[in-house]
Amino acid sequence: MNIWNGRSIWNARDDHLSINQWATRIDEILEAPDGGEIIYNVDPDDTREYDAIFVGGGAAGRFGSAYLRAMGGRQLIIDRWPFLGGSCPHNACVPHHLFSDCAAELMLARTFSGQYWFPDMTGKRVGIKEIVDLFRAGRNGPHGIMNFQSKEQLNLEYILNCPSNVIDNHTVEAAGKVFKAKNLVLAVGAEPGRLDVPGIDAKGVYDHASLVETLDYEPGDTVVVVGGSKTAVEYGCFFNATGRRTVMLVRTTPLKLIKDRETRKYVLDRMTEQGMEFVEGANVTRIEEDGEGRVKAVVANTPNGEVRIETDFVFLGLGEEPRSAELAKTLGLKLGPKGEVLVNENLQTNVPNVYAVGDLIGGPMEMFKARKSGVYAARNIMGEKIAYTPRDFPDFLHTHYEVSFLGMGEEEARAAGHQVITIKMPPDNENGLNVALPASDRTMMYAFAKPHMSGFQKIVIDANTRKVIGAHHVGYGAKDAFQYLNVLIKDGLTIDQLGDMDELFLNPTHFIQLSRLRAGAKNLVNL
Amino acid sequence: MNIWNGRSIWNARDDHLSINQWATRIDEILEAPDGGEIIYNVDPDDTREYDAIFVGGGAAGRFGSAYLRAMGGRQLIIDRWPFLGGSCPHNACVPHHLFSDCAAELMLARTFSGQYWFPDMTGKRVGIKEIVDLFRAGRNGPHGIMNFQSKEQLNLEYILNCPSNVIDNHTVEAAGKVFKAKNLVLAVGAEPGRLDVPGIDAKGVYDHASLVETLDYEPGDTVVVVGGSKTAVEYGCFFNATGRRTVMLVRTTPLKLIKDRETRKYVLDRMTEQGMEFVEGANVTRIEEDGEGRVKAVVANTPNGEVRIETDFVFLGLGEEPRSAELAKTLGLKLGPKGEVLVNENLQTNVPNVYAVGDLIGGPMEMFKARKSGVYAARNIMGEKIAYTPRDFPDFLHTHYEVSFLGMGEEEARAAGHQVITIKMPPDNENGLNVALPASDRTMMYAFAKPHMSGFQKIVIDANTRKVIGAHHVGYGAKDAFQYLNVLIKDGLTIDQLGDMDELFLNPTHFIQLSRLRAGAKNLVNL
Repeated sequence: MNIWNGRSIWNARDDHLSINQWATRIDEILEAPDGGEIIYNVDPDDTREYDAIFVGGGAAGRFGSAYLRAMGGRQLIIDRWPFLGGSCPHNACVPHHLFSDCAAELMLARTFSGQYWFPDMTGKRVGIKEIVDLFRAGRNGPHGIMNFQSKEQLNLEYILNCPSNVIDNHTVEAAGKVFKAKNLVLAVGAEPGRLDVPGIDAKGVYDHASLVETLDYEPGDTVVVVGGSKTAVEYGCFFNATGRRTVMLVRTTPLKLIKDRETRKYVLDRMTEQGMEFVEGANVTRIEEDGEGRVKAVVANTPNGEVRIETDFVFLGLGEEPRSAELAKTLGLKLGPKGEVLVNENLQTNVPNVYAVGDLIGGPMEMFKARKSGVYAARNIMGEKIAYTPRDFPDFLHTHYEVSFLGMGEEEARAAGHQVITIKMPPDNENGLNVALPASDRTMMYAFAKPHMSGFQKIVIDANTRKVIGAHHVGYGAKDAFQYLNVLIKDGLTIDQLGDMDELFLNPTHFIQLSRLRAGAKNLVNL
Repeated sequence: MNIWNGRSIWNARDDHLSINQWATRIDEILEAPDGGEIIYNVDPDDTREYDAIFVGGGAAGRFGSAYLRAMGGRQLIIDRWPFLGGSCPHNACVPHHLFSDCAAELMLARTFSGQYWFPDMTGKRVGIKEIVDLFRAGRNGPHGIMNFQSKEQLNLEYILNCPSNVIDNHTVEAAGKVFKAKNLVLAVGAEPGRLDVPGIDAKGVYDHASLVETLDYEPGDTVVVVGGSKTAVEYGCFFNATGRRTVMLVRTTPLKLIKDRETRKYVLDRMTEQGMEFVEGANVTRIEEDGEGRVKAVVANTPNGEVRIETDFVFLGLGEEPRSAELAKTLGLKLGPKGEVLVNENLQTNVPNVYAVGDLIGGPMEMFKARKSGVYAARNIMGEKIAYTPRDFPDFLHTHYEVSFLGMGEEEARAAGHQVITIKMPPDNENGLNVALPASDRTMMYAFAKPHMSGFQKIVIDANTRKVIGAHHVGYGAKDAFQYLNVLIKDGLTIDQLGDMDELFLNPTHFIQLSRLRAGAKNLVNL
């Protein structure tokens, strides 16, 4: 069994590659013109039937596998790519983090252009392809870690760089071999949403995946982004920060997901200040080509009539669509209106012994949900009856800043009948944002030179119960905190408990100390 | 009562200055050759006796006052400076944050020197004075907020820019007037530790306070830092990042407070990699002058004999000494071995009705302790019998990175009899640190180009109880999280609970998802 379908099979079981060896090997496979070897890591000495075959080894499949294995079960992952971890580290969330980091750094460099050690950024256009290339050159590093960790530390079985052929609810064929399992866990993810307009296939039209995979020229001075939610804004801010005119064509209105009105206004105002252009109510009607198959312009209908923007670079940030069609046909899966595989709270599909997890089951298409749904499917398979319904989770996005939020916005809390007080920074005052707080790591230079750029933060409190019911932060360094703060808030965190914590000065969320300034009062008021 | 001791008294009570007006006013006062006007904000219509006079309006005095006031009490702050907030925003913790932010940015710029948008940093020395000037020009912004917030939002009474004369345990004289109170709360803080060696008064020898107040030249190419703990390292890394040879003369060994051995090694290795020089076991014996009163060299005894380092710039980072002498004499206060005012757990000194709070009572000399001790004194004064003993708090310091830690280090946990497992990033592997994880905001460029610079993180877990007993992080963006994580850990957080949280990808602490990879196992092992 060394060759299948003309491709060689590497029996990886007894090889113990280092992380860097894995990275190199993955690189070679990805570069191989014939698709490269199949990575075959199956334990020949384990005679047990598989408890589950995970079809797809991205976040959901890999974490589900790890948990099932840790519980003592036997699993097999089959994935079409030569690495575990899925699209996230390959062409989705991880590159976006690099680009967003560059956006933050570039905003700083442009703000202090020619001062201190910063170069003169006047009219300076930074290479998009150059930064994409930085990512491409390094992405096999994380891939190497996933394969190494999964094999050497988590003791997972996997077949990679190999298509899987699902036969029925217990049977999958891969690398010319038939594998039987008590259960299947479908974890094949999603793919970028498409736009069905003339010219959409022109060269120069990208989504987050094709950008990383295929960008081979340096975009000109104008970028058009289609979309107005997380992905569109995250990439749009990066393109803007590189020094290009960036026009956001938004079907409705941007960043509706930020529910607190002041927070959202701060976020939008800062993007506008950086020169981003938003066209709301815009529906793209066609993409014009230059006669040689390259994009020349984007045309959209807007409330103010048709607009036409000349550009050689269009980015589609239209969300993700579950990759469900083929599996649904084979297995007879029930799908929801967005093509998502329908599952119950035990992650079971309508087909017995078939589970579905991750982006394949629809929103929220976030990493925690992918990983946790994989884990919860594993736990159900291993005999726990345990429900998973993501709710009350914290949320996050990048602009040039990091924007973290959880719970309710101020208006929402009032509408829900809470007696709301807010504690925020900057406080309401005659000088508005033009004051030197908040300050924190990564905003210190702004705090002293451009105060209004140093961030915005707010907690929403129910004055009767004294409980924190919402938190909102624009700045840097609060994302990690929101994970833990969310747990405390779900557990009933009050302003008094918050004010009694030990802050690490100068903490990016000033929530603890600001709460302490008010917590002495029986009747709470705004700060 | 418009003039006292030749200085005019501004009755600020009925003026309602904006934050920016406050900043300007404070600036004028600080620049006034005669010391400027006294800021007199006392409520003439409140006829109640003061529950407490706070002698000193820094973190401890201001937060204590705010809490006491919020509880319905009456308070008065008297401070020698024309602003509330104390030394922290004026010449201590806040400027250090600006400098540390610059250190982080400069390390990034030097690492990517001449690449992408970064300037060629080869041999480039960045101005220390220039960055100190940035701070000086902006520091009245935070001052303005403190005065504004304290008066307009917190409704505090205060007399600023005015010496206080404590007469007895109920009486303080200020601005020519005698104030009576049921209690005194002493909150006069600490001052930088001195070094008693010949030449110490030479021009060019600074501590964190005098650096900000008096630096009037651009230091040359060599900096000598005396000390090896937080302050010394934080400033040392900044000086190093500006492109100067930086020699750290450490009496024992640097950063002993980081207890986890691997974490400490990572921190020290990165500093060394940036070119910092550490001389351990060094005792400074004298500072040589150039004949015109300026420092020329520092001489120290070391285990390898005497060293002499030529420099025009010496920084003393020797910790803080409580400013207790005068008050102890007046009131008959008992002091501890480091000059700290001794208090019981209700923050009471040995003198009836006299409380002491903040840095004046000794370590930990951290912001949370200052603020909370002020608050707890206020609560005791207002009739709550409530103990405050800081313990099990998270800790933090800057190098070029942010270093956050809480609970036990690995070795310490083993020594305490725990059955320890650790979960860390990078994992133990043949390539050591030269792998692309961890990655997170502000380390993404390192992760893809210089992986070993992208950070280090570890949680320490008791395998029997499954509880997290220590957490350690070097990177960026975890400081805020450690505040909340610490509460959860004190509350008994297990690996299972941690693994069940909702992470915000790509979170700087990878603790949640890494825990999830192990939590399925009954018998926990390292990751």
